[in-house]
Amino acid sequence: MKTEHTWCVIMAGGVGSRFWPMSRSAYPKQFLDFLGLGRTLLQQTYDRFLPLCGKERILVVTNARYAAIVREQLPDLEPWQVLEEPGRRNTAPCVAFANAVIARRDPEAAIIVAPSDHLVLKEEAFLGTLRTALDQAVSADCLVTLGILPSRPDTGYGYIQFAEDGASSHPRVKKVRTFTEKPDHETALRFLESGDFLWNAGIFIWTLKSIDRAMKRHLPALAKAFTDREKDLAGDRFTEAVAAVYAECESESIDYGIMEKADNVYTVAGDFGWSDLGTWGSLYTHLPKDDSGNAAIGSAVKLYGCSGNVVHAHDGRLLVLQGLDDYIVVSTHDALLVCRKRDEQQIKQFVTDLTAESGERYI
Amino acid sequence: MKTEHTWCVIMAGGVGSRFWPMSRSAYPKQFLDFLGLGRTLLQQTYDRFLPLCGKERILVVTNARYAAIVREQLPDLEPWQVLEEPGRRNTAPCVAFANAVIARRDPEAAIIVAPSDHLVLKEEAFLGTLRTALDQAVSADCLVTLGILPSRPDTGYGYIQFAEDGASSHPRVKKVRTFTEKPDHETALRFLESGDFLWNAGIFIWTLKSIDRAMKRHLPALAKAFTDREKDLAGDRFTEAVAAVYAECESESIDYGIMEKADNVYTVAGDFGWSDLGTWGSLYTHLPKDDSGNAAIGSAVKLYGCSGNVVHAHDGRLLVLQGLDDYIVVSTHDALLVCRKRDEQQIKQFVTDLTAESGERYI
Repeated sequence: MKTEHTWCVIMAGGVGSRFWPMSRSAYPKQFLDFLGLGRTLLQQTYDRFLPLCGKERILVVTNARYAAIVREQLPDLEPWQVLEEPGRRNTAPCVAFANAVIARRDPEAAIIVAPSDHLVLKEEAFLGTLRTALDQAVSADCLVTLGILPSRPDTGYGYIQFAEDGASSHPRVKKVRTFTEKPDHETALRFLESGDFLWNAGIFIWTLKSIDRAMKRHLPALAKAFTDREKDLAGDRFTEAVAAVYAECESESIDYGIMEKADNVYTVAGDFGWSDLGTWGSLYTHLPKDDSGNAAIGSAVKLYGCSGNVVHAHDGRLLVLQGLDDYIVVSTHDALLVCRKRDEQQIKQFVTDLTAESGERYI
Repeated sequence: MKTEHTWCVIMAGGVGSRFWPMSRSAYPKQFLDFLGLGRTLLQQTYDRFLPLCGKERILVVTNARYAAIVREQLPDLEPWQVLEEPGRRNTAPCVAFANAVIARRDPEAAIIVAPSDHLVLKEEAFLGTLRTALDQAVSADCLVTLGILPSRPDTGYGYIQFAEDGASSHPRVKKVRTFTEKPDHETALRFLESGDFLWNAGIFIWTLKSIDRAMKRHLPALAKAFTDREKDLAGDRFTEAVAAVYAECESESIDYGIMEKADNVYTVAGDFGWSDLGTWGSLYTHLPKDDSGNAAIGSAVKLYGCSGNVVHAHDGRLLVLQGLDDYIVVSTHDALLVCRKRDEQQIKQFVTDLTAESGERYI
């Protein structure tokens, strides 16, 4: 189902501080070739959606400071396809911004909204799941979020509880009952055992009409900020209009602002080798490893008596590591991080401390 | 006793591979300011001997490739005071070389021979011990090696067993019975308990006549190599003569080649805050530490949940370390080492491996 109304909105404005010091505020994670595959995460995301909608209906929404990087990494995009946000307002304004641009070109659009920094190993299964989701979104006038069949009681993901009663003729389409943010280990274990929970992948599918209606109902101020400037957004005063909207709108996530409140939310369960690559630990699980379970990216890494580490030598320096078990080691041109894998949630704090002490110097 | 016949020979030709990656073959340990004091180890050694013999009777013997560094770090030395060895032949040829130079200027010389990379915290006590040793060397026509009162069963040092019967009117002067190379822990413990063992500091005191005679007797080929070229060494063909000697002489240590064989060897026991700074671990014991026992040199080092580490950030990079206990972390412009302190003896092996793989690139 590659239809002329299928659009894709790639969200590429994140800072990726959990991947410091490799991901930097001036050049975050999505713009890096994390897996050493020759394409950055953004480029891989773009490649993945191409068969579904074609390059002329892919938009990338990013922070204005990253626009040049996006245009450089995706040279096939026309200028209008890179949407520059003048500030950080989380995902709801980002979606509304994309909707405003799509509305002028294709009122009948069916839209996939996806992050730019996820990993998908089984591309065909992924596209198949998206086609099912698009069918559901178009035929049932609803909001769809992709769900992942959970394989472990992961406490780093949000969970979707679905209702068992058949919502559709398609067995993998389920009505969403509740969303739960990152649970503790006990709760995650219960979710896994219950069998009616999925991981929330943060990939959304809806028609322009459905999401517009939901936005007017659940985030009326945001919706009004854009409709009030409809004319300017269509003309020469586009940039000023966007600046004005972002100046007045509040930070809000699409999950909390709409998905958790709307009553026509569905999920399509998929199993397509997905990871949000949210932390070094989750990246580690997807990297090739040596016999001692070390995942090393970088040509000049020498390991002695090391096991279970994820090592990233981003610069050309030689790393000689001895006696490290289950650590993250990241070396860049101006910073080095050594941190226990199990303590990786502290990395955000290191970045906060650094910012307080020395501004953006190392951030 | 600053006499006009007291000379000092500083040996500065070592490679210092146990301190890789900070100590590099092109710029070894003795040329670095390891303790962050503003003077390199060589400069500190030079400063330490100045009160005893004055700058005009200090010689530095080093490998030809380091001569420019020595001249730069000790600009007060005249060109003839820096002796350039054309090859590595251990300490015996180095001593014979210095003797040949001193012989032409001062046949009555009393000579202190010392490494360039040791730490001495109590300078007055050190000089006092040396004066006692010089007295003994001059009055008894013998070879003297400084001994350190041992404070722990260190397995990284050589030991001197001394004879108890009074060898001199000075209570700290003892006749040497045996030398023992680095012992195992059990043996070191027995040495410490026995009370008649000292650490061998590798600092020697003798008159030119005594060492010349010992050399002729115990290392006749080496002695002959120099005497055969006496004329050339005194004239314009100095460099060629040195090259010829080094081409034919064998590698030999002064300890094994002479001290262990001669029968007129004495030691003077001292306690002057000495360390040979032989490894990162021994350096660690002499660095200031934070409340968790971390010794960090370098302005941009951030530690979280770390204890007992020695961290050396030689370049300007930021180091953020979390969850490391008792490690060595050294960051230079082109290499990083992380190694357990207790496994530091492996560092030499890492350097050997690197040399085998990539030559001198990282060495």
